[in-house]
Amino acid sequence: MENKKKSTIKDIAAVLGLTPSAVSKALNDHPRISEKTKVAVKEAAIQLDYQPNYLSSALRKGKSNLVGVIIPRVNSHFFSSVVENIEKVLNLNGYNIIMTQSNELYAKECQEIDTLLKIQVDGIIASMANETTDLEYYQKIKSKGTQLVLFDRGEEELNVDYVGIDDYKSSHLVIDHLVSQNCKRIAHIAGFKHIRIYKERIRGYKDALEKSGLAAPENWIIESNLRLEDGRRIMQQLLDSPERPDAVYVAGDIAALGALQVLLENNIKVPEEIALIGFSDEPFTSLTQPSISTVNQHSDQIGKLAAEAFLERINNPKKKTINRIILEPELIIRQSSNRNLK
Amino acid sequence: MENKKKSTIKDIAAVLGLTPSAVSKALNDHPRISEKTKVAVKEAAIQLDYQPNYLSSALRKGKSNLVGVIIPRVNSHFFSSVVENIEKVLNLNGYNIIMTQSNELYAKECQEIDTLLKIQVDGIIASMANETTDLEYYQKIKSKGTQLVLFDRGEEELNVDYVGIDDYKSSHLVIDHLVSQNCKRIAHIAGFKHIRIYKERIRGYKDALEKSGLAAPENWIIESNLRLEDGRRIMQQLLDSPERPDAVYVAGDIAALGALQVLLENNIKVPEEIALIGFSDEPFTSLTQPSISTVNQHSDQIGKLAAEAFLERINNPKKKTINRIILEPELIIRQSSNRNLK
Repeated sequence: MENKKKSTIKDIAAVLGLTPSAVSKALNDHPRISEKTKVAVKEAAIQLDYQPNYLSSALRKGKSNLVGVIIPRVNSHFFSSVVENIEKVLNLNGYNIIMTQSNELYAKECQEIDTLLKIQVDGIIASMANETTDLEYYQKIKSKGTQLVLFDRGEEELNVDYVGIDDYKSSHLVIDHLVSQNCKRIAHIAGFKHIRIYKERIRGYKDALEKSGLAAPENWIIESNLRLEDGRRIMQQLLDSPERPDAVYVAGDIAALGALQVLLENNIKVPEEIALIGFSDEPFTSLTQPSISTVNQHSDQIGKLAAEAFLERINNPKKKTINRIILEPELIIRQSSNRNLK
Repeated sequence: MENKKKSTIKDIAAVLGLTPSAVSKALNDHPRISEKTKVAVKEAAIQLDYQPNYLSSALRKGKSNLVGVIIPRVNSHFFSSVVENIEKVLNLNGYNIIMTQSNELYAKECQEIDTLLKIQVDGIIASMANETTDLEYYQKIKSKGTQLVLFDRGEEELNVDYVGIDDYKSSHLVIDHLVSQNCKRIAHIAGFKHIRIYKERIRGYKDALEKSGLAAPENWIIESNLRLEDGRRIMQQLLDSPERPDAVYVAGDIAALGALQVLLENNIKVPEEIALIGFSDEPFTSLTQPSISTVNQHSDQIGKLAAEAFLERINNPKKKTINRIILEPELIIRQSSNRNLK
């Protein structure tokens, strides 16, 4: 394939009958430009295969035009989809991104932060590792004057822009649905309580059960790393317990897959004997037999909004207000919890 | 969780009864250290949660101790698993990695290369975008004196270290198995021929059919980007053709999933009426109904060997020979092609 001549801002302006300055402002989400024009300019940019000129961007004073993204792990559809959407928005606005993964380890996350600060990125967009409770390294990002935006896993005390879903409400959607399917003994395979999103899911689980007049015994809330093997181990433990649950709400899809494997190996009918619900809408949840009900976290929206939060902050350095954007979760009902369907 | 005191090389040495210098050499894969000792040291390093001291490493003359990894897309188990394994080896040896994705686009790949060169990484480990035919930017990496290792998708004319599997042989494994299942009209949903690995798979497909005395009409080799929608579109096209195939060999699992969806929507029995085989062993291939036969590309081995190739080169700058490491592919037979099983 030939290396085509790159389109410029002038080409976009010519196609749309705008001035190059208006196109540039639209690409940078300038408040003076209407939403309609912004959409038209960004669509034309994609059509014309416009590539921002990074080299000249890099010459702007003191900016690298690089944004570092730290995710717990690459091997997750949720995180890779967020990254994809961050990248779409930032590339159109003249920023390149580089990714690192913490592998859920605090020590590795600290190293990744040091690396990104050394490279002098203009900002860091991150979702915290499961292990992280000490916020010192995130404080360091702020103290160096590097922009910081958190998504999904982020702690309020850092007082930075945040994008995520309403985890408390997610649990209400899950429990209300399971109750409507006549489930009465609902266990929760949870994430670690020291992480805000998992704590919120646990709190929602308890409150929703209470609202429905159902018990939530403490030994039915089992915290873990939510890996496949955690789901397997804890599901086996629940099957071996004197009073089996008739439904299990798992705070992550991969652990839910592990739980499903154990249920099927034990010839337990899902959802008739035990209903199952996961979290995140990983693509495999629609492929299993039975397919797994789950909660959609809107990874596309989260990525787009996190990138826009960064842009707004870097373009208005004097902005004082902190944005906490909380999206509505969506319950996706599939075979594993729908007793009417089967 | 507390930030534990970091283990040092001295701690590892004490546990194993070695000198700190021997431990350091073992961690850096020094040729004077036996394989047995290297394994023991690396296991102890993991046990003791040893974290290399990046700061002092960075002070070594003219080195950033950063390695850039360019992959076509993050959202693939194959690529994310390769990255994970590159990272394991490099972290143990005092290097940090940063990732970028090309999204299969030539222009984006060029930008990513420029970014990594600007950051002054010590090396780049890459798998090329589908669009890339012009090797100018890869030549630029070499001309800047930055180490370059390619995996999976790499062109021989660049004359750099390469790790991949035997794609030609993979097709032989696939076709021989389909022939043993009594398939006689085998179509191939292929990748683009200008990429060496896909060209090799096509060549293997043709030669294996010829060896078995079967026809390989040119219109049964259909090239595409191998996305889900490509698999769907081409499968429909094959179903609408006057002589339907009785087996389809797809050069990528995601496209194979699209093909399977279309087959099931058309109530075609898989594998009885049409057998199906994909490529890469993405985890979802074992979850579909029927499960999809596929080719294991050994992502763990590829990542490990690519990282080791980089280390060998950076530790022996005068080394002249180029390593091309070609691994044996492995056919994984599942329900979608096994007519005896069902």
